Amino acid sequence: MSRPPIIQTVRDLQDAAERERAAGRRIALVPTMGALHAGHLSLVKAAREHADVVWMSIFVNPTQFNDSNDFGAYPADLSRDLELCASHGVDLVFAPAPGELYPEGAQTWVEVGELAESLCGATRPGHFRGVTTVVTKLFLAARPHVAVFGQKDFQQLAIIRRMERDLGFGIEIVGAATVREPDGLALSSRNLHLGPQARQQALVLVRALDVAEDSLARGEASHEALVALVARTIDTASLARLDYAELRDPDTLRSARAQITAPTLLALAVHFAPDPDGQGRKVRLIDNRVLQPQR
Amino acid sequence: MSRPPIIQTVRDLQDAAERERAAGRRIALVPTMGALHAGHLSLVKAAREHADVVWMSIFVNPTQFNDSNDFGAYPADLSRDLELCASHGVDLVFAPAPGELYPEGAQTWVEVGELAESLCGATRPGHFRGVTTVVTKLFLAARPHVAVFGQKDFQQLAIIRRMERDLGFGIEIVGAATVREPDGLALSSRNLHLGPQARQQALVLVRALDVAEDSLARGEASHEALVALVARTIDTASLARLDYAELRDPDTLRSARAQITAPTLLALAVHFAPDPDGQGRKVRLIDNRVLQPQR
Repeated sequence: MSRPPIIQTVRDLQDAAERERAAGRRIALVPTMGALHAGHLSLVKAAREHADVVWMSIFVNPTQFNDSNDFGAYPADLSRDLELCASHGVDLVFAPAPGELYPEGAQTWVEVGELAESLCGATRPGHFRGVTTVVTKLFLAARPHVAVFGQKDFQQLAIIRRMERDLGFGIEIVGAATVREPDGLALSSRNLHLGPQARQQALVLVRALDVAEDSLARGEASHEALVALVARTIDTASLARLDYAELRDPDTLRSARAQITAPTLLALAVHFAPDPDGQGRKVRLIDNRVLQPQR
Repeated sequence: MSRPPIIQTVRDLQDAAERERAAGRRIALVPTMGALHAGHLSLVKAAREHADVVWMSIFVNPTQFNDSNDFGAYPADLSRDLELCASHGVDLVFAPAPGELYPEGAQTWVEVGELAESLCGATRPGHFRGVTTVVTKLFLAARPHVAVFGQKDFQQLAIIRRMERDLGFGIEIVGAATVREPDGLALSSRNLHLGPQARQQALVLVRALDVAEDSLARGEASHEALVALVARTIDTASLARLDYAELRDPDTLRSARAQITAPTLLALAVHFAPDPDGQGRKVRLIDNRVLQPQR
C-alpha cells in the first residue's frame, strides 16, 4: 500500500484544494494531532461517506496546550501515522512545520465566547482559543467541504460548529461517535501515558457515566444528586482526581436545570496520577454522554 | 448603464465565487460601508488592475463602532451607491443584512494583538476587533484573490495584512493611496457631517502633516519636538481637539525612536466640534503620512 502524498505548506495545500474544487470533487478534512488510533480512523471512515477525497492534517498545535509538559510529552510517530493513513485510504496528508501555521510575529487569534468559557475552557485557560485559531488556519489551507471531529471532545465540537456558523466558512461539520476500547475506555492518544494501574482505574469514567444514566433511568432526576453520585464514583479510584463533572444543555453548554427533564450532557474530566511504582505519567482524561430522561 | 447584480446572502456569494474561481477568473473585493466617494472609487480602479472581476461589499458593520451615535448617524444611500458602482464598472455588489453576517447567538471574534492596541485601537476600544471579524467574514463569503483597502486607514491596513498572513487566507492585500479634496482634506464619508466652519478647519490635519514633514526636511529630527509641533498646529483650529498625534514604525506600529532616522509614520486623529451656529455634528477625522528623513 503506497503512502499518501504529504504536503507541508499552506500554499501547496490551497493549490491542491483549488484543483479538487475546480474538478467538482468534494474534500473532507480530518484534523488530527497525529498519534493516530482507531478513533481517528473512524473519523476517516465518516469523512469518506461525505466526500470524494479525504485529507488528514497532522499537526501538534502548540497554542492549544495550556501545559508545556503535556505538549512536550505528546506522542509523535509520523512514520507510523502515515502507514495507518495509507491502509485506511487517506488521499493526502498535510503535515506543516509550526512556522508554517504560526509565521514569525503571528498575533491573530480566533476566539469563541460563552461556549468556550466553561468545562475544559475553565480548567484549561487558552486551550480553545488555540483550537479555534488553528482550525481556522487548517480550514483556510485545506478549503474542505466537510470536516470531521470526534464527539469525545464534545465541547470542542460545539465550539467549532459555532465558529463555522459565525464566520461563515461554508463547511459541513460532522461529529463522529466516540470509539472505545473493548473494556469501554474512550480512545485517546493520552491513554498511552497511563501506567497499568491507572489504565485499569481509568474505567471509572465510563462507570460514572453508566451510574448517572442508570440513576436517571430509575427516576433520580436531581441535578445535584446526579453530580454527587458521579463524584463519589470517581472517588473510588485511588489514582483519580476529579477535574469537573457537569450537567449541561447539549446545545448551549449552559448549566442544566435543578431537575433533569430534557436531554442533558454529562461531561467529565479526571486527572490520573502515575502508578505508585512510578509507571506512567500524569494524564487528564475526558468523556461524556448525553443523558436521556424518562418520558 | 445597468446596475450590477446585488447578492444578499453569504451562500449565494460563495457559490458565485466558486464559479468564478472554477472558470479561472481572479476576484478582487473592495470592502466598504457604503456612502461611496471618490476614495472608494479609486479602490475599485486599483482592484481592476489586479483582477478580472471587481466585487464590492456594502455593509455598515455594527461591531466596529465604539460609539452608537456614530453608527446611527453613518450615512447610507444604497441607491446612489449602486449608481456609482454601475458607472465605475463594479461587477457585483454584496449587500447583506446584519443577521447574515452576525447570525443569532454569534460569539466568534477574530482579533489581532499588538498592532491593534495603539493609536485608534487605544481610543476606539473594540473597533479593530469588529473590523477584523467582519473582514474575515467578508473574505470567507467572497473568497477573493485580491482585496483592496485605503491607506488613509493606515493602521487598519497594517492589521489586515497581519491577519491575512497569520491566518493564511491566501489573499493579496493591496493598499491604495489616499484620495483628497482639491484643498487637501482626505476623503471620508464622515466629512459630510462637518459644518462649514469645521470643514474649513479640517484642513489643519494636512497642514500638520506638512509642517512635520517640512521641519524634518529642515533638520528637526527630534520625535518630541515634531509631535509638539503637530499638536500646536492642531491647536490653532478652534473647533479641533487632538485625539492623538504619534510617530510610529510603519511596519510594527511601535513608537518611533527619540530621533527620526528611518521612514516613520505620522498618524493623526482629531475631533471636531459642530460649528458655533449648530451646523454639523461631532466628527473624528484621521490622516497620516510616512515621513522620510534626510539622508
